[in-house]
Amino acid sequence: MMLDAVETPAVLIDIEVAERNIQDCQDYCDEHDIALRPHIKTHKLPRLAQAQIDAGAIGITCQKIGEAEVMAAAGIKDILLTYNILGPAKLARLRCLHDAIKLSVTADNPTVLRGLSEAFADAEWPLAVLIECDTGGNRCGVQSPQAAVELAEQIGQSMGLRFAGLMTYPKAGGTADVQAFMAGAKALLAEAGYACATISSGGSPDLRQAHLAPVVEEYRVGTYIYNDRSLLARGACNLGDCALHVLATVISTPTPERAIIDAGSKILTTDLFGLDGYGVVIDHPALAVAALNEEHGHIDCSRAPGSLSVGDRIRIVPNHACVVSNMVDHVYLMDGDEVFSVEEVAARGMVV
Amino acid sequence: MMLDAVETPAVLIDIEVAERNIQDCQDYCDEHDIALRPHIKTHKLPRLAQAQIDAGAIGITCQKIGEAEVMAAAGIKDILLTYNILGPAKLARLRCLHDAIKLSVTADNPTVLRGLSEAFADAEWPLAVLIECDTGGNRCGVQSPQAAVELAEQIGQSMGLRFAGLMTYPKAGGTADVQAFMAGAKALLAEAGYACATISSGGSPDLRQAHLAPVVEEYRVGTYIYNDRSLLARGACNLGDCALHVLATVISTPTPERAIIDAGSKILTTDLFGLDGYGVVIDHPALAVAALNEEHGHIDCSRAPGSLSVGDRIRIVPNHACVVSNMVDHVYLMDGDEVFSVEEVAARGMVV
Repeated sequence: MMLDAVETPAVLIDIEVAERNIQDCQDYCDEHDIALRPHIKTHKLPRLAQAQIDAGAIGITCQKIGEAEVMAAAGIKDILLTYNILGPAKLARLRCLHDAIKLSVTADNPTVLRGLSEAFADAEWPLAVLIECDTGGNRCGVQSPQAAVELAEQIGQSMGLRFAGLMTYPKAGGTADVQAFMAGAKALLAEAGYACATISSGGSPDLRQAHLAPVVEEYRVGTYIYNDRSLLARGACNLGDCALHVLATVISTPTPERAIIDAGSKILTTDLFGLDGYGVVIDHPALAVAALNEEHGHIDCSRAPGSLSVGDRIRIVPNHACVVSNMVDHVYLMDGDEVFSVEEVAARGMVV
Repeated sequence: MMLDAVETPAVLIDIEVAERNIQDCQDYCDEHDIALRPHIKTHKLPRLAQAQIDAGAIGITCQKIGEAEVMAAAGIKDILLTYNILGPAKLARLRCLHDAIKLSVTADNPTVLRGLSEAFADAEWPLAVLIECDTGGNRCGVQSPQAAVELAEQIGQSMGLRFAGLMTYPKAGGTADVQAFMAGAKALLAEAGYACATISSGGSPDLRQAHLAPVVEEYRVGTYIYNDRSLLARGACNLGDCALHVLATVISTPTPERAIIDAGSKILTTDLFGLDGYGVVIDHPALAVAALNEEHGHIDCSRAPGSLSVGDRIRIVPNHACVVSNMVDHVYLMDGDEVFSVEEVAARGMVV
């Protein structure tokens, strides 16, 4: 099947670019002796998770159990679930996963640890638990190294659990804060008799600064495999490094200054990340994706009036690749202009 | 199954509220002798489309062929597709639909009309085509009544097509503009010998002003069935009229001022509609859904520190109900606290 036959709107993945991104990141991590644990939220495809592992990743990262279940069923053997898991139904699913693969999870509070311990008390081998630390990202995580020690002590006293180290999702530009918090916590933990098997950080924007926080032994990164306009804006990649494009058709040109495409927020999403507009139109630097309705994209042609006609197809690099993957049941894996696989986005929509 | 057993995050639909919204809207349209043609984009459920028709709607509105195919397969017999359809594959699907149900479409340019005519030239009965008019919404649509006459003439000369009237999706607050444009176009068309079988307008924000554009005979409306925070903000509904809630669990309370829930942009979406934050937290007026990551929602508790604990469940009215329906494979239809159906969102993700 050739590109011309792909119905729009569609998500295209340039596999050569994606594989190059995988290798470049692996090379960087190898050079600095950092274990790479890619986050599959960007692609949600077992095939690309396997490609990441084949290139040298030690395992993958998932955020929801549903994602981990899909990846485990597809043969991925080592998964870190960076999420506080709560409630009997989810804990039972976690236990099933633990019986099948090498699983580790994170936790940042005593309630979650109590639930994990109840569910794993009679497990054949203990569940590895990393303590999530808030190093400035202001999301989840304990607020101080001392609080990490207290949770490590709780893990130490909990049946079925094993303290496995520290994890953080830092703020952008927060590499120095990661080093300070994690080094402090590691030292305090050592004083208390707890060794950190793993100290894990992550984030695509600061990937190439990972070695500047030498306390970090493992790095989790998702968007690097596809890249997107947000990473372009940060200077973390070039346009040619963007593996995911949204293919759209111009359906209306009500005025020379306005073209409407068949890709709206149901494929490009309204994620802005502080940017103006919703994507980069490839080969049309004067055009802007100015606004989105659910099924309509508004292309501002005022800097190049009349440059699009009804029936034209354009390619767009979206602001945020990860959420675009989540909007479609299938992506088209492209080798140049040839579709070599219409790939099911197997972990799409796995929010539970 | 009771609410307590529903795993989070989840989309709950209060069926009593939805049915009341359906009836209220139907009553208004009946009172003003306006034909109601609900847009199924809000719920994407054949069951609720049928409920709308059972209450008196003349048919439904869809935007993408995939949505119409799902609804036709479920037994809906009258569908208006308010979209410019282009390209051989989509036109072949349109032809199949036309053979199965009462189908009408819209068009706003000669290229689309040529494609439709080619695909329908040998059809047993002609395809009904409404001309889309831009009455100030600045999306698709011809720019003047005169341009509508020109397209009607093209339809008149096209094998397989039948001129069926005018359609617009107006800007919010644009009722007077709809009346002016449509009355002008109707008069010009009459002079040219073209009768408008239907003049169709739509939009939830101005639903109750529909009768103030008496030229409009048909009204298309979607969000009214669930309502949402955007309609709350416009004063178009009350909190008790909001049928769709997102159920979420507090997974972390890193500080008394911050709680993190398991519902992020993959369920609430980043649609803002000019609002601050991402939803209304039911029963917690002091809390705000301040920020979203893909799988994390940030609840700002600074006006009620410590008011949430890990494991608490909260219900959120999202900014935009339609896009939330599109994020999940299933919604929970609720009768009070009891789940009476885990309903597949059959038309989810139908962007093609």
